[in-house]
Amino acid sequence: MARDVANRRLRAGIVGGGKGSFIGAVHRVAAELDGQAEVVAGAMSTNPQRADESAKAWFLQRSYHSFEEMAVEEAKRPDGIDFVIIATPNHMHFPVAKAFLQQGIHVVSDKPMAFSLQEAKEEVALVESKNLIFALTHNYTGYPTIRHARELVKSGALGEVRKVLVEYLQDWLMEAQEKSGNKQAEWRTDPQRSGIGGSIGDIGTHAENLLEFVTGVKIASLSADLSSNVPGRQLDDDANILLRLENGGKGILTCSQIAAGEENGLTLRVYGTKAGLEWHQQEPNTLLFKQPGQPTQVLRTAMPYMSDAAQEATRTPGGHPEGFFEAFANIYKMAIADIRRVESGEKPVGGYPTVYDGLRGMLFITKTVESAQKDAAWVEMKDA
Amino acid sequence: MARDVANRRLRAGIVGGGKGSFIGAVHRVAAELDGQAEVVAGAMSTNPQRADESAKAWFLQRSYHSFEEMAVEEAKRPDGIDFVIIATPNHMHFPVAKAFLQQGIHVVSDKPMAFSLQEAKEEVALVESKNLIFALTHNYTGYPTIRHARELVKSGALGEVRKVLVEYLQDWLMEAQEKSGNKQAEWRTDPQRSGIGGSIGDIGTHAENLLEFVTGVKIASLSADLSSNVPGRQLDDDANILLRLENGGKGILTCSQIAAGEENGLTLRVYGTKAGLEWHQQEPNTLLFKQPGQPTQVLRTAMPYMSDAAQEATRTPGGHPEGFFEAFANIYKMAIADIRRVESGEKPVGGYPTVYDGLRGMLFITKTVESAQKDAAWVEMKDA
Amino acid sequence: MARDVANRRLRAGIVGGGKGSFIGAVHRVAAELDGQAEVVAGAMSTNPQRADESAKAWFLQRSYHSFEEMAVEEAKRPDGIDFVIIATPNHMHFPVAKAFLQQGIHVVSDKPMAFSLQEAKEEVALVESKNLIFALTHNYTGYPTIRHARELVKSGALGEVRKVLVEYLQDWLMEAQEKSGNKQAEWRTDPQRSGIGGSIGDIGTHAENLLEFVTGVKIASLSADLSSNVPGRQLDDDANILLRLENGGKGILTCSQIAAGEENGLTLRVYGTKAGLEWHQQEPNTLLFKQPGQPTQVLRTAMPYMSDAAQEATRTPGGHPEGFFEAFANIYKMAIADIRRVESGEKPVGGYPTVYDGLRGMLFITKTVESAQKDAAWVEMKDA
Amino acid sequence: MARDVANRRLRAGIVGGGKGSFIGAVHRVAAELDGQAEVVAGAMSTNPQRADESAKAWFLQRSYHSFEEMAVEEAKRPDGIDFVIIATPNHMHFPVAKAFLQQGIHVVSDKPMAFSLQEAKEEVALVESKNLIFALTHNYTGYPTIRHARELVKSGALGEVRKVLVEYLQDWLMEAQEKSGNKQAEWRTDPQRSGIGGSIGDIGTHAENLLEFVTGVKIASLSADLSSNVPGRQLDDDANILLRLENGGKGILTCSQIAAGEENGLTLRVYGTKAGLEWHQQEPNTLLFKQPGQPTQVLRTAMPYMSDAAQEATRTPGGHPEGFFEAFANIYKMAIADIRRVESGEKPVGGYPTVYDGLRGMLFITKTVESAQKDAAWVEMKDA
Repeated sequence: MARDVANRRLRAGIVGGGKGSFIGAVHRVAAELDGQAEVVAGAMSTNPQRADESAKAWFLQRSYHSFEEMAVEEAKRPDGIDFVIIATPNHMHFPVAKAFLQQGIHVVSDKPMAFSLQEAKEEVALVESKNLIFALTHNYTGYPTIRHARELVKSGALGEVRKVLVEYLQDWLMEAQEKSGNKQAEWRTDPQRSGIGGSIGDIGTHAENLLEFVTGVKIASLSADLSSNVPGRQLDDDANILLRLENGGKGILTCSQIAAGEENGLTLRVYGTKAGLEWHQQEPNTLLFKQPGQPTQVLRTAMPYMSDAAQEATRTPGGHPEGFFEAFANIYKMAIADIRRVESGEKPVGGYPTVYDGLRGMLFITKTVESAQKDAAWVEMKDA
Repeated sequence: MARDVANRRLRAGIVGGGKGSFIGAVHRVAAELDGQAEVVAGAMSTNPQRADESAKAWFLQRSYHSFEEMAVEEAKRPDGIDFVIIATPNHMHFPVAKAFLQQGIHVVSDKPMAFSLQEAKEEVALVESKNLIFALTHNYTGYPTIRHARELVKSGALGEVRKVLVEYLQDWLMEAQEKSGNKQAEWRTDPQRSGIGGSIGDIGTHAENLLEFVTGVKIASLSADLSSNVPGRQLDDDANILLRLENGGKGILTCSQIAAGEENGLTLRVYGTKAGLEWHQQEPNTLLFKQPGQPTQVLRTAMPYMSDAAQEATRTPGGHPEGFFEAFANIYKMAIADIRRVESGEKPVGGYPTVYDGLRGMLFITKTVESAQKDAAWVEMKDA
Repeated sequence: MARDVANRRLRAGIVGGGKGSFIGAVHRVAAELDGQAEVVAGAMSTNPQRADESAKAWFLQRSYHSFEEMAVEEAKRPDGIDFVIIATPNHMHFPVAKAFLQQGIHVVSDKPMAFSLQEAKEEVALVESKNLIFALTHNYTGYPTIRHARELVKSGALGEVRKVLVEYLQDWLMEAQEKSGNKQAEWRTDPQRSGIGGSIGDIGTHAENLLEFVTGVKIASLSADLSSNVPGRQLDDDANILLRLENGGKGILTCSQIAAGEENGLTLRVYGTKAGLEWHQQEPNTLLFKQPGQPTQVLRTAMPYMSDAAQEATRTPGGHPEGFFEAFANIYKMAIADIRRVESGEKPVGGYPTVYDGLRGMLFITKTVESAQKDAAWVEMKDA
Repeated sequence: MARDVANRRLRAGIVGGGKGSFIGAVHRVAAELDGQAEVVAGAMSTNPQRADESAKAWFLQRSYHSFEEMAVEEAKRPDGIDFVIIATPNHMHFPVAKAFLQQGIHVVSDKPMAFSLQEAKEEVALVESKNLIFALTHNYTGYPTIRHARELVKSGALGEVRKVLVEYLQDWLMEAQEKSGNKQAEWRTDPQRSGIGGSIGDIGTHAENLLEFVTGVKIASLSADLSSNVPGRQLDDDANILLRLENGGKGILTCSQIAAGEENGLTLRVYGTKAGLEWHQQEPNTLLFKQPGQPTQVLRTAMPYMSDAAQEATRTPGGHPEGFFEAFANIYKMAIADIRRVESGEKPVGGYPTVYDGLRGMLFITKTVESAQKDAAWVEMKDA
């Protein structure tokens, strides 16, 4: 079943991401950015005409009207896709992944990984049964500064983690956008398509993943207060959550889609027994390293003092801002390298979020909702 | 009993604030900054020699060895003090205030107002029984930008408050400073002198006060997770608190004295149905006003668009940074103006934190500890 | 001669940009980012082995050992390249451009456009004689915020421009890097390959171009003080220049490659009779708009209030940082769209820097050196 | 003639600074801030009624209607003033200083020191002939961060200074404020009261002084382009100046009072052979220290790593913003300490700007105007 992937760009297909989608184009740019892959096929919409138009706009070679058909057909072709990109609403993440995994095709999926915790567990089992790469686009872990932050913690530079503050603030659901024809808002506020989490699924999982990625410490339990600020909205659009970490540290996670004037404010602060760090996604090339009684150090992408892990995620010299696309592309870069390895009979080396991160995310959504339903009682973040 | 205060600077006395105290000198500078008062007498230490040396260093006219004596003697003198400044550790706030109030002397007291909620309630009753000014130095409310922030909320520019994030982060108690001869650390970590609150009393009350001052909305209930990160420390040095507000809004208050690399990071963010605002104490001349879909506005101290309330708290043109002392002095400026009014038979107009703010602060400490003892159960922030 | 470019990605070739080059990879990413072009051929090094290795690393279909051969051969092929990317040192910009233009192949060239003013004038004449697109990668004009800044000036929002401050500060030539095997430093400090300008050619021209692009006002005359701070270095590594503008405004342009601790600090400030603006390349998604007596407005990429010109250069919603690659890609996006237009018999619409910007840049280098040789005498910035 | 200054606050008098003056109140606050002096007498206006009202508003003990009378009378009194504060328009700086110096009274004067270079030279000679303190309020040198910056340069941490960028940008004279009844604007744009310099005298001298104070390197020559942007205005409101330093370094000084949207933007950047530094007056508690290839360090007022020179100019712990008043007060603090020393028979130790700084400032104004009149020819900054 091994493909010959030497001396060529990998071939990718995409499910979802048709016209009007923001994230579809991001996946395409990110997948192709390093010249290591090319999107050649797609099932870009459930609406056939829209699917074809979307595929044509991207100059795709093959446009399908169903992802099931695409999975089967591509698996048969000698020039079939090497991996699939999943850029659908949440309820279609797992079914699509399953279809392609079963055809022996690698997967790069958007998050959250699945519609429910149960699905996520099935997905883990399925991936474990295959020798295939599964990457989840918790794209914010792709920033060089974030990778350096993780190295700093690992190296012991912060000491033991005592306090973590992570927040993800937006304002785009301040009003009832879901009633004004905004497709993005419609499915994200619809329990049938989003699952039980609103803001906590859409952005809270990014915050949760970032925290655990950088600190290497897992959330042990949480106490969550969820809100829905718009009449008639069924899912949360704001969350305030107390955290207790497995190492005894504590923290706060807050996310909101009704924080007036905020764009995409993902921020992480970690305080240890020796030092602290601070990072803001909107100025992602800067990482602050804070030692008590010492000058705060402004660590910057691409500078020579950055760790290898950061340098490998960097494409330009210092002062040439790398942004959202480049971070996203880093997930692809690592996943594609692993696909090449697997197809060449080597072991994958990872570095990108996987099915296990996806499972943590689904657990986070599940336990947050459970805590909120108990008036913010403490709930352990583990699968009973 | 009315003093003739026209055509002269008011005369102030100080209790506490002797050599080695940081806050004593702050009170003196702030009280005198506008040339409306002069500190002339003091009971600056319980150690007589230290009291005299401290008084001499400040060129005070009269040095006392006991605040009780000072209260009595000053009340008798024709040139006695008009008001007293209380700059002692927490357990000595109420006894001192009581002594001077009973002698008909106005009071400007450091916070928290008292050692316990019970004391605070007595203090309210005492002040209510007198025609005297009582000002509490929640000094951060003295910044022009904060006064403008309050006006913005009052004006309806933010709409209804939905979410509040307030934090106060320091790192000076990361290590067991209280065991290394640091006097400031000693009393602040000692329940006999600080009361039941550690960081929540010392800095958490500032955060609580700032939140209620700016939003005009009271905290209805809270769920508090308190920590003590240093072996042997009896009081909290870190707190993560979920808030529910009286208007249905929600929020987070976090304070810490173990946040590595943080100096004096008091930050407030308020999000309403129409707009948001953001303020950082370490860059206090800037207030961000955030309207969804509009450019964030950088509001700056002294600029012509600032409200009258802000302008009255401003002493220089734009771009001349006003800082900690000037904000502190604004509390004195307003209190002194009210003392002049009261002594001239006019009604006081207020604007500065009073005994009622002090009561809220003591309630906050009490309820936070109560919640923490119940594993962060929700507790109403009212006096049963 | 018209190519059928509908329904396919354009085909590009690259000259230069082989292994070890930073800018070669930037051109490839930028050219391909929007999925509108693909690099398929290259003459990536004058060293044949290196050329082939570089081409293979990029999965190019055709590797040439000479750009002259490439120009001729590609022009013959039915599937030949539509445009060429020039990523060579300065002295090879014009010869390469000439070879491809003469074969009817569109050109995207790095800057400065040529080795000398004389060459630049020939290049203008050549381009004017052809119905071909010539785009010059003054990439910083590709940022959405810069395009918005230009619109602001055009709209009259700043009034008449009175003062301009533009600076471009780096530190990578603080030491004699050219003697330590740094290839980038070698050719940039070598008059045989760089021409008469050092820092003013490498980065000063970006500053000059940005200033004229945003303000729409040309530099009328200049007084330049150039320095070379490293023993033995033949070209300038620092420049301080007084500017007088055609509209009577004045300004300063400073560039440096010895400014310790600076990465890639391109900054523009423009002050008019009504308002000012400020932009920093290292945080490129923010543009400050400053009206006297009004709050400074923080204008941000992708927000709804941004002009159409800015929106067309934007790929993500607010808060998703777009960086160096995306700005660079905007030059390609516009140039590629114009190539499609020209090949379809339509008129090009422009928007990207052209041969005339290239001519201004060469004039700037020439006149700056002339002024410096006269001890910073005023020199008119026009071709006598 | 020695006064007994032990065990009491010094007594100060003020000339100028009456109602409507901004700087008068600043001087009073700064002089009194540390409790080491008290303003007791004044000749606060040439208008007798206004003088008296101003004195009464400050609770002064003695109000004079002429500074000459004040100098004579105060010198006679046993409780006469120890020093005089000069807060008049420029043309009255020297006559007032002279009157008090001749009476044996110490002087703290606003800048520029005199109306003309000739006056400045007389002033130097006069001060040299007396055993009196003369301090000039180049107040920006009073910031702890600036004092630390100077220590950094002195220590060799920057290496040899190669490039200096200093700017001072305001916008308050964008329009013809001098024709709208703005008293501040009137005298500052009037050659009869300001002297030959407009913006270069008012703010350019601060920039020049800051540069020489921090670097310890003098300006050797300059090439100045001055502008007047408002019809009918006789003095410059904008200046762009090339600098050459005595050590071979180069730089730029720009000042403006027509830079739309700027408040009080004094900024200093210094680049040496080893490192650079950056400072912004509007956020004065932060100093950036930039080493090539190392993380930029954020140096902050009051932190333990700051030099003794900075600590002595600091009154609060880290994170308690010190501002304009405190920096201004540091000039007074040092001058008052020196007055105490001189009156006690000790030698003064300095640290504050003196008559020699004042002379440099007048030379700067003179040479800048001379250069501008020669179309920005190079002019040596020394007294022929």
